[in-house]
Amino acid sequence: EDVARPVGVCTMMRLPYQESAEGLNAAFIGVPLDTGTSNRPGARQGHCRIFGPRHIRAESAMIRRYNATTRAAPYNSLVVADIGDVNVNLYDLKKSCQRIREAYQKIMGAGCVPLTLGGDHTITYPILQAAAEKHGPVGLIHVDAHTDTGEQALGEKIYHGTPFRRCVDEGLLDCKRVVQIGIRGSCYNCWLKSLVPLMSEVRQQMGDKPVYLSFDIDGIDPSFAPGTGTPEIGGLTTHQALEIIRGCRGLNLVGCDLVEVAPVYDLSGNTALTAANLLFEMLCVLPGVQAC
Amino acid sequence: EDVARPVGVCTMMRLPYQESAEGLNAAFIGVPLDTGTSNRPGARQGHCRIFGPRHIRAESAMIRRYNATTRAAPYNSLVVADIGDVNVNLYDLKKSCQRIREAYQKIMGAGCVPLTLGGDHTITYPILQAAAEKHGPVGLIHVDAHTDTGEQALGEKIYHGTPFRRCVDEGLLDCKRVVQIGIRGSCYNCWLKSLVPLMSEVRQQMGDKPVYLSFDIDGIDPSFAPGTGTPEIGGLTTHQALEIIRGCRGLNLVGCDLVEVAPVYDLSGNTALTAANLLFEMLCVLPGVQAC
Amino acid sequence: EDVARPVGVCTMMRLPYQESAEGLNAAFIGVPLDTGTSNRPGARQGHCRIFGPRHIRAESAMIRRYNATTRAAPYNSLVVADIGDVNVNLYDLKKSCQRIREAYQKIMGAGCVPLTLGGDHTITYPILQAAAEKHGPVGLIHVDAHTDTGEQALGEKIYHGTPFRRCVDEGLLDCKRVVQIGIRGSCYNCWLKSLVPLMSEVRQQMGDKPVYLSFDIDGIDPSFAPGTGTPEIGGLTTHQALEIIRGCRGLNLVGCDLVEVAPVYDLSGNTALTAANLLFEMLCVLPGVQAC
Amino acid sequence: EDVARPVGVCTMMRLPYQESAEGLNAAFIGVPLDTGTSNRPGARQGHCRIFGPRHIRAESAMIRRYNATTRAAPYNSLVVADIGDVNVNLYDLKKSCQRIREAYQKIMGAGCVPLTLGGDHTITYPILQAAAEKHGPVGLIHVDAHTDTGEQALGEKIYHGTPFRRCVDEGLLDCKRVVQIGIRGSCYNCWLKSLVPLMSEVRQQMGDKPVYLSFDIDGIDPSFAPGTGTPEIGGLTTHQALEIIRGCRGLNLVGCDLVEVAPVYDLSGNTALTAANLLFEMLCVLPGVQAC
Amino acid sequence: EDVARPVGVCTMMRLPYQESAEGLNAAFIGVPLDTGTSNRPGARQGHCRIFGPRHIRAESAMIRRYNATTRAAPYNSLVVADIGDVNVNLYDLKKSCQRIREAYQKIMGAGCVPLTLGGDHTITYPILQAAAEKHGPVGLIHVDAHTDTGEQALGEKIYHGTPFRRCVDEGLLDCKRVVQIGIRGSCYNCWLKSLVPLMSEVRQQMGDKPVYLSFDIDGIDPSFAPGTGTPEIGGLTTHQALEIIRGCRGLNLVGCDLVEVAPVYDLSGNTALTAANLLFEMLCVLPGVQAC
Amino acid sequence: EDVARPVGVCTMMRLPYQESAEGLNAAFIGVPLDTGTSNRPGARQGHCRIFGPRHIRAESAMIRRYNATTRAAPYNSLVVADIGDVNVNLYDLKKSCQRIREAYQKIMGAGCVPLTLGGDHTITYPILQAAAEKHGPVGLIHVDAHTDTGEQALGEKIYHGTPFRRCVDEGLLDCKRVVQIGIRGSCYNCWLKSLVPLMSEVRQQMGDKPVYLSFDIDGIDPSFAPGTGTPEIGGLTTHQALEIIRGCRGLNLVGCDLVEVAPVYDLSGNTALTAANLLFEMLCVLPGVQAC
Ligand SMILES: [Mn+2]
Ligand SMILES: [Mn+2]
Ligand SMILES: [Mn+2]
Ligand SMILES: [Mn+2]
Ligand SMILES: [Mn+2]
Ligand SMILES: [Mn+2]
Ligand SMILES: [Mn+2]
Ligand SMILES: [Mn+2]
Ligand SMILES: [Mn+2]
Ligand SMILES: [Mn+2]
Ligand SMILES: [Mn+2]
Ligand SMILES: [Mn+2]
Repeated sequence: EDVARPVGVCTMMRLPYQESAEGLNAAFIGVPLDTGTSNRPGARQGHCRIFGPRHIRAESAMIRRYNATTRAAPYNSLVVADIGDVNVNLYDLKKSCQRIREAYQKIMGAGCVPLTLGGDHTITYPILQAAAEKHGPVGLIHVDAHTDTGEQALGEKIYHGTPFRRCVDEGLLDCKRVVQIGIRGSCYNCWLKSLVPLMSEVRQQMGDKPVYLSFDIDGIDPSFAPGTGTPEIGGLTTHQALEIIRGCRGLNLVGCDLVEVAPVYDLSGNTALTAANLLFEMLCVLPGVQAC
Repeated sequence: EDVARPVGVCTMMRLPYQESAEGLNAAFIGVPLDTGTSNRPGARQGHCRIFGPRHIRAESAMIRRYNATTRAAPYNSLVVADIGDVNVNLYDLKKSCQRIREAYQKIMGAGCVPLTLGGDHTITYPILQAAAEKHGPVGLIHVDAHTDTGEQALGEKIYHGTPFRRCVDEGLLDCKRVVQIGIRGSCYNCWLKSLVPLMSEVRQQMGDKPVYLSFDIDGIDPSFAPGTGTPEIGGLTTHQALEIIRGCRGLNLVGCDLVEVAPVYDLSGNTALTAANLLFEMLCVLPGVQAC
Repeated sequence: EDVARPVGVCTMMRLPYQESAEGLNAAFIGVPLDTGTSNRPGARQGHCRIFGPRHIRAESAMIRRYNATTRAAPYNSLVVADIGDVNVNLYDLKKSCQRIREAYQKIMGAGCVPLTLGGDHTITYPILQAAAEKHGPVGLIHVDAHTDTGEQALGEKIYHGTPFRRCVDEGLLDCKRVVQIGIRGSCYNCWLKSLVPLMSEVRQQMGDKPVYLSFDIDGIDPSFAPGTGTPEIGGLTTHQALEIIRGCRGLNLVGCDLVEVAPVYDLSGNTALTAANLLFEMLCVLPGVQAC
Repeated sequence: EDVARPVGVCTMMRLPYQESAEGLNAAFIGVPLDTGTSNRPGARQGHCRIFGPRHIRAESAMIRRYNATTRAAPYNSLVVADIGDVNVNLYDLKKSCQRIREAYQKIMGAGCVPLTLGGDHTITYPILQAAAEKHGPVGLIHVDAHTDTGEQALGEKIYHGTPFRRCVDEGLLDCKRVVQIGIRGSCYNCWLKSLVPLMSEVRQQMGDKPVYLSFDIDGIDPSFAPGTGTPEIGGLTTHQALEIIRGCRGLNLVGCDLVEVAPVYDLSGNTALTAANLLFEMLCVLPGVQAC
Repeated sequence: EDVARPVGVCTMMRLPYQESAEGLNAAFIGVPLDTGTSNRPGARQGHCRIFGPRHIRAESAMIRRYNATTRAAPYNSLVVADIGDVNVNLYDLKKSCQRIREAYQKIMGAGCVPLTLGGDHTITYPILQAAAEKHGPVGLIHVDAHTDTGEQALGEKIYHGTPFRRCVDEGLLDCKRVVQIGIRGSCYNCWLKSLVPLMSEVRQQMGDKPVYLSFDIDGIDPSFAPGTGTPEIGGLTTHQALEIIRGCRGLNLVGCDLVEVAPVYDLSGNTALTAANLLFEMLCVLPGVQAC
Repeated sequence: EDVARPVGVCTMMRLPYQESAEGLNAAFIGVPLDTGTSNRPGARQGHCRIFGPRHIRAESAMIRRYNATTRAAPYNSLVVADIGDVNVNLYDLKKSCQRIREAYQKIMGAGCVPLTLGGDHTITYPILQAAAEKHGPVGLIHVDAHTDTGEQALGEKIYHGTPFRRCVDEGLLDCKRVVQIGIRGSCYNCWLKSLVPLMSEVRQQMGDKPVYLSFDIDGIDPSFAPGTGTPEIGGLTTHQALEIIRGCRGLNLVGCDLVEVAPVYDLSGNTALTAANLLFEMLCVLPGVQAC
């Protein structure tokens, strides 16, 4: 800690920056896209030209190098860097999806596990296209207030309310290994409960095969994560969010994302800070990470 | 969903707007009054000329047409509209109370159940005057951090700290059927508890006779609902708020209000969003609403 | 003035709302679109689900019924209403342009002059398509910090940096009758100068034929109008903006717009207030408006 | 300057605080009232319980002990203190006016010149009642965007749009010695002009008899003073505001006020800072102040 | 309650202000220092020149005179005042520490128990120097997300990450009577638990000897207390914070502080309100306070 | 322009980043220091961990590659990069000054002209130490509202009110070639005037010898640049700021800085945008820059 935290180029967790995923075991990557958002845009931008990924990076300066609770020391086991942002097309959502797919084909082709800073939830669709090309249909752990399985809206089939419908349509998911957690109105009531038992079941369900973890920040209650565009009351606590991610330890994770942080509603920065923490926890449960 | 949410005139839950309550079973109505507020005004206004009711209406664009948890489908059973705002007198609190009373006499006279968007808690006093004229003394379920039964302040008998004292003075309440929930410092400690059992008792107490539900948003903890003028730490969770309102199903509700949302302290809009959700839940437990 | 300003449905200048332009001489209409914005989106949204047109409408509650400076009394001469918003497609910019074109074909077909609340500057392109269909190539008074005549960006030909290039490509403008005011870096230095002489020349140039007035709020200096996405220092004063619009009196104006107000950067609301004032001044110089 | 500016009790310009005006030549006094405001309240409050007078006091910590431009050294010539706030009645505007009148009777009775931190413009009416009781009808220099001479609104005769009508009704003003500066829409166009010549005329008009200076911050353009409830574009610059106040040097000033600062719209604090500067300039031109 | 809350000089809980601690049993005192902060400064300042202690004072206007839950009536038993702020040196952190130490030597020398409004956590180090001079090594109840026992950062031994290391180095603590609560990553998991049993153990551990209570607001979860510079997810609830402080009843408390409130991140003011409540609860458990 | 502006690592004007100044003709460099600030800190930080230099970098994404007004094309003539931030010591202002001096010794030793993003004005003192070591006493063009020539404050000789006194004490300035512009209260009244004639005189005074340009953003009026800690009303316009910097064309500039941008007061980001524009204009007048 010889350098003050505000000093220098702003990368995720002050990691080195490199342009490609070559040589990396895992990489943080941003997708500054919010044109798939239906209500309150802002995953891309915010006050003063601070976009979703950049906002999470700024808050991530506080994250430490090892995990004080789980003892995981990811940088002892893995080569990790921040590889910047996908060059999205701000004016055409469908072309952006194509660019995202191509970017992730390269990352996964290099044997690197992407940890994505969204961006709205639309982006998980092209990411899973790339994942299924590499790994075949993948298992999915989807944390969200919403199912995101709509057929269309305003006549469009691609936006942040439909990614998992599109994934099913294209056979990208191993549908017996899909779980959704945090959906509002569902029977499984999470309030005042530890999710450790649930995650034990989930690990059974997922087995050894490839799993993708997609975490929509609105799965968490808006008291903890106000900075998002489609908040829903009655959500998960951050304790439960930690239980979910830590419960993924041992799975064959091939990618993770944290989406729907909208800086414009995140006035204290604490939603981005929560996102940065959760992304660090995801890194800490990747295959091969040892404890210190 | 063929119209994008930001498009068009802003009414509560994108319902039709009409000027009077004629022909309606239930109506949303705003009372943009904050001159009865003692500390941090703002129920009426906020940044950029957004007043309490208007602020709740803006956030209500996200509410769906049926209740995903309880399966209630209010629009299948009831004719509902947004009937705009009471034309309050901004410069004289007592004259405003008179105007509110007259407005609610007409609404209730038309056989319509008013669902009120406040405004500070002063407004419940003239609403209950109109309710008692129509129904006789009513039962009361009062959710609040405060008892609001003060005698006076600064020499004035009418402000947001006294409405229920005034109601008792005038015999508007059936005092054996009055319950207060969420009062800070009271013996009934709600922390880490389901309120389902309490609401079972409340339904017993209320019986079949007319009941009014008055919900001060400050009954909820400020972590969930920061946008209010007299916040008190140690409050209810939104889960508990949902249990309270859903626990009113089966009662003979003749009116409901949601008061004390102060836009100026609601920077993310999530307090108004919570208010809009709670008003929708109130609609879903009105007499006659069927499940889908 | 028997109704308090915060009371009631929020329309432009508290005018009546109607769904179509039938029977109107002039109409205010919103286009809540910001997906053509390159840098700091926000013309569509802002805090708390307040979109560009809605934000301007909220601030417009302060505008009076006649013009204290010019004595114009537009409502004595013209039938005017707020006809709501164009139903844009949030997920496809090109389809939105098509919808805007069709909406304006109807408005202009009804003989109504549209006064548009943007929205980003992309929208002027489909509006001028409709105008040219009705009137043939039109004269243009374009106030802006930027020329907006780019060929493309990110490979796209339609976004807020290209509308006037597209208009020229399609022959929508009478190019001898086009003037741009406020462009930064141009030779005509406006600082510390009255623009009354310039507007006299402009009126000569425009003659009696149809003219469209497109006013990008970023033409004004960011000290007066901070709430926009592409601010440029060294701009016009609001005094000069008034001189420009008042200098259009006598022209054959067939449409006007005020674009690029971005609520998210308009924290005091004063940019929207300025926009509302300028739209009122536009109404006051429409053909047929008499003084009181 | 041995004490850091943020340290200690917050008084106007870090002056001593005392409870009464006894023994003072001049006093700063707050009137935290905004219930006479028609549109955007906030003169009383703001974020975090910061009221108009308190907000101006906070920013006034930057003001120096002598005037670097005019060389006035008010504290060498006058005994000055901050005497706190008038104890207004938040729930009854008319009773507040009575309390203000009584408070100013005492201050002026003690031979002290009040420099008032508003509060909305309603308060000038009871202040001038007290002034006329002491001095007879007074001359008035009124800086404002609005004439504030309305007859009534919403049926009420007392609110911030009517104070000077009430003053004329009651004969409190010496009507031959009344001037209004900054009114929008008036013939005297101030743009790009020094007001030094105007103030020379004003001094002639006022002569040696008692004069009251009432400065509504909305007289200044919203680019300089965004933090107010009824902003109007096309206003005075702060340079001109300084010329107006400095042009009052030599007049028999018996009182001054600075009203309509609304903290909720003053996000940078610079409107309050401007108000604090103008109040200091008023102090510097009181009768008896010498240069250093 | 004959005076409206926004009226008058702003002291802690509207207590009388006096310059020294002479004659007091307990005193509120501010330390407006944030130069020991490593990440997000702001304990000293905030918008509009509102500093940490001043911010807490402003929100404290809502606190009542007795404790509705515990029935404690501190003002019946103790003489209490607000004694203003320590005159810190903003440009030299080490000299500020010296000034704080001297100020607290005087306060404790006068037999007065200081209740401190921070300021960052650095300040507890010089306060404990003064406490140990008076009382010998003291017991410590330390509520925090962090241990604050670092050796150094950026080559400096004194900043907000090291105070308790410095205290141990200098023998200021009775190390067998030290407890830390709320540290993230520690074994004692507080989630969904009452802390009443823990506090019973703590009282046993502390016995009758002098105890100091240092409460870093970041011990509480950021959903309840977002307004701080080093927030950590997964923290205590305000219910638990109340259990901790109320659990100190009966201890020989010789001083208390509440540190790390950063106004700049406390946009609703609710973190300062929580701080004011906790400081009042501390006052209510001081030795000698009786119930009403 | 094939990459969307929000994409990628955030450097000044999207220039390449490199760690040292080797091989560069000019470099942008940040000094994230605000501990020398007396009143409203914030040059270092802001909401969400955005520090002064980082805030300016974020807004600089809008700056184009050549100067539309002056036709300067700096990148055709000079090799320019962003070399990151000086690693300041947040807890010791004097040690930070030493680190800044050493960093600039290296930059200037490499023959590179530093363009500094502050930081508070304290930093110009160690920068000028390094400049004088390299070039001997330099000429100074100092734009500011304040003279910054104080002797001390709170007993400290180094803070943002004293840098030029310290420079004179140490003989770093060629005192016959020093000019201050924008000082409030000075005789040279700039209002409503072009500064082109003044700059002609300044160029005469400066001659061919080395000149340093230090620009405190508070020299500009707070209506244009609200985001600073010690704003003073009655300042320069941005037009005049452009005249000053463009008037430096032809001088032997050996370094430039732009200081005192305080993100916390810059809510729209427009102060940082102004700063970024002014830094670009400085780059455009460096020796050797050709027009396109
Ligand atoms: Mn989702
Ligand atoms: Mn979701
Ligand atoms: Mn209440
Ligand atoms: Mn309440
Ligand atoms: Mn444009
Ligand atoms: Mn433009
Ligand atoms: Mn006025
Ligand atoms: Mn006015
Ligand atoms: Mn701590
Ligand atoms: Mn801590
Ligand atoms: Mn300076
Ligand atoms: Mn300065």
